[in-house]
Amino acid sequence: MNRTYIKDVKEHLGETIKVQGFVENYRNARAMAFIVVKDITGKLQVTVEKEKHPELNEKLDSLTGDSVVTIIGQVFENDYVKLGGLEMIPEDIIPESIADAIPIARKEIPATKKKKAVERSSIDQRIDYRWIDLRTDENQLMFKAQTVMVNAMRNFLLGENFIEIHTPKLIGAASESGSSVFEVKYFDRNAYLAQSPQFYKQMAMASGFERIFEVGPVFRAEKSYTSKHTTEFTGFDLEFSYINDYRDVMAMEEQLLKAGLSAVKEKYGDEIKELFGQDIIVPETPFPVVKLADLYKALEEEFGYKVPEEEKGDLTTDAEKLSYEWVKKHYNHEFLFVTDFDAEKRAFYHMRDEKGVPMGYDLIWRGVEITTGAQREHRYEVLKKQAAEKGLDEDVKFYLEFFKYGCPPHGGFGIGVDRLTMLLLGLHIKEAMFIFRGPNRLNP
Amino acid sequence: MNRTYIKDVKEHLGETIKVQGFVENYRNARAMAFIVVKDITGKLQVTVEKEKHPELNEKLDSLTGDSVVTIIGQVFENDYVKLGGLEMIPEDIIPESIADAIPIARKEIPATKKKKAVERSSIDQRIDYRWIDLRTDENQLMFKAQTVMVNAMRNFLLGENFIEIHTPKLIGAASESGSSVFEVKYFDRNAYLAQSPQFYKQMAMASGFERIFEVGPVFRAEKSYTSKHTTEFTGFDLEFSYINDYRDVMAMEEQLLKAGLSAVKEKYGDEIKELFGQDIIVPETPFPVVKLADLYKALEEEFGYKVPEEEKGDLTTDAEKLSYEWVKKHYNHEFLFVTDFDAEKRAFYHMRDEKGVPMGYDLIWRGVEITTGAQREHRYEVLKKQAAEKGLDEDVKFYLEFFKYGCPPHGGFGIGVDRLTMLLLGLHIKEAMFIFRGPNRLNP
Repeated sequence: MNRTYIKDVKEHLGETIKVQGFVENYRNARAMAFIVVKDITGKLQVTVEKEKHPELNEKLDSLTGDSVVTIIGQVFENDYVKLGGLEMIPEDIIPESIADAIPIARKEIPATKKKKAVERSSIDQRIDYRWIDLRTDENQLMFKAQTVMVNAMRNFLLGENFIEIHTPKLIGAASESGSSVFEVKYFDRNAYLAQSPQFYKQMAMASGFERIFEVGPVFRAEKSYTSKHTTEFTGFDLEFSYINDYRDVMAMEEQLLKAGLSAVKEKYGDEIKELFGQDIIVPETPFPVVKLADLYKALEEEFGYKVPEEEKGDLTTDAEKLSYEWVKKHYNHEFLFVTDFDAEKRAFYHMRDEKGVPMGYDLIWRGVEITTGAQREHRYEVLKKQAAEKGLDEDVKFYLEFFKYGCPPHGGFGIGVDRLTMLLLGLHIKEAMFIFRGPNRLNP
Repeated sequence: MNRTYIKDVKEHLGETIKVQGFVENYRNARAMAFIVVKDITGKLQVTVEKEKHPELNEKLDSLTGDSVVTIIGQVFENDYVKLGGLEMIPEDIIPESIADAIPIARKEIPATKKKKAVERSSIDQRIDYRWIDLRTDENQLMFKAQTVMVNAMRNFLLGENFIEIHTPKLIGAASESGSSVFEVKYFDRNAYLAQSPQFYKQMAMASGFERIFEVGPVFRAEKSYTSKHTTEFTGFDLEFSYINDYRDVMAMEEQLLKAGLSAVKEKYGDEIKELFGQDIIVPETPFPVVKLADLYKALEEEFGYKVPEEEKGDLTTDAEKLSYEWVKKHYNHEFLFVTDFDAEKRAFYHMRDEKGVPMGYDLIWRGVEITTGAQREHRYEVLKKQAAEKGLDEDVKFYLEFFKYGCPPHGGFGIGVDRLTMLLLGLHIKEAMFIFRGPNRLNP
């Protein structure tokens, strides 16, 4: 017998069907047993009158919460049942996998007369048993939504003639300082883990690929313990040639995010509102743009925020947060492009204008930076000079070679998929990853 | 002025348009200059009568092969021109990036009266300058085709309710021996690079995700110097729950490959035939299946191949190759499923039947193994015993935990994207990767 998804059982009233899933809730009383079965599409109540099914008793006694079952039976309407007004009367129950007692409290369990409320386990305790934690409706919705969002973004790019590439994560030189890199024992020498596909994305431009993207892991050997940092995350990176300037890059990112958010809103907007209390807002284009110095001026005037002198050329975390208030108020928008950073604070490969200002931007969503983008410097001599200024010319020697034999003007950006998901649903980064990785976290 | 793709210039005859690309061929004679410009969509001849454009002379003199140019001009039909019978007469030529003399010979350059043929650089020399090597029509077609194939495979799975996940590549324990793992310095301890997402794919099954896939890098610390091995490649992995047995896994893989190959054939079949001489054959389903022992018997009878006694329980590389002849002859098919391997030769997590035979398979395409798939053992006690038999129970302790708290029956497989591309186009693995990684190769 083929399996029926729980979302579809209402189309099979009175038929004998098979459902499969986890036991989300189980009550085994003297005369009756109630099982709530949950599959990836929904939940179904199964009701057993035990007297009528003595052959099921042993199975019912073996069953525990979170066990996996196959149940064959008939589904009927029952107005007294909460879950869609449907109820299954089983003919057979097959325990596929019996669960030990669950070691974490995934959610706060409400108090009853007999019991005080059971507190929810901490996020760190839950990550210890992440596979159990991921069984909640919220967590499954999170990855369904991420799947739809990332796929819509990919499809948008494929429609724009982008080619998908996979660049090496094992690299020969510890490049692009600033962020630190992990060292790998590579046979009788050292290798390093790529902290971004930046150099290889640009190599693809020198290869004449014109427009490329990559979705893949990015590694950062940073001891950061914030709500948004992690040592390994999924980067969504792209790069494209023959741009006029960095505003083409910004326009591409606007379209990309719009494509991703539209798809999520359409498919899961209501569920996300219900389970996470978050509205998905498909952004209007163009997004608001502000120069860094102007933003600081406005934040000082409106919020009394004063940026420390030494951080003036870069965007501080506090200013990021405040900028959300500001952009909502003045533009009724969740996104904000910030431009005109100090060259000193930006990567050497950003192209600079005649005044030495980097031709790039940060994109802030809901008060958190999600992207750094820029036109890249593709002129070998200029690039070499900019690398030397930052003392990197020896480290990035292999990369500079990419620009000696012809390279189109180009630009690009990268987005952290996990950070997007985190902001979409209003979460801590630890909650938004399939499995979080931090300085003290390598398991499961 | 917007850029026009070269494939579209024929729709703009007589108009002033802008094209951009690499100088694929350049002849700067006394009276005339000829430039072949190549972009990602095609090639165009640009012809300059130098007397008519004295202002272009300096630019023409600066130009070199492989430089990047923007050319503005009008396109006319000219039956004497090979490239689509079209010719551009430029108004302006803007060198965007002047290339140094190219250090490799991408292709054999035919002999002329004056010159002996220039031999093609070796693949290793070409990889040293991979970004220049990738500019050929063949290499660009390769990644366009791979993009289409992988995307069709992903879309097929999304239509089958699969969720995309990204599992950690940094892991806490060196697991699943056999293949060796790379060690990473992770702050004050060691981490390891995942040699497959196997354990985490299965974790997603224990999480109730039911059907998942991942496209991401896989790391193998093996000193193999064959035409198909590499230390880092892109894995296309999937896993799904509530299967009846491993034949469901095989059927899913058949559909997946069919979806990928159909898409490539439709979009690039003719070009691939022209540039690589390879036919794309969309396979009939079901694929032929043979038991390992029966295959060895057949290969001995037909080809006199005798498998060494100690390798009988596994498929040898020689037998893989011969099996292609065999399956073509007997089934007129390029794919062959081989089943009934020895448990001793298979991973501990493959489920075994009552006789102890692993319930899985290898899939051979054009004589090369592209997949190992199986139903997985989801029963904690059995799995633990099978791990212990291979002396792995301590190493995989964290993984065994996934099966203690409820886990559906499930199965899955993984395919190497690079190996698929290699077989699709009839290449060496070094030629089929964006940048190859081997024991002696970490650059560029």
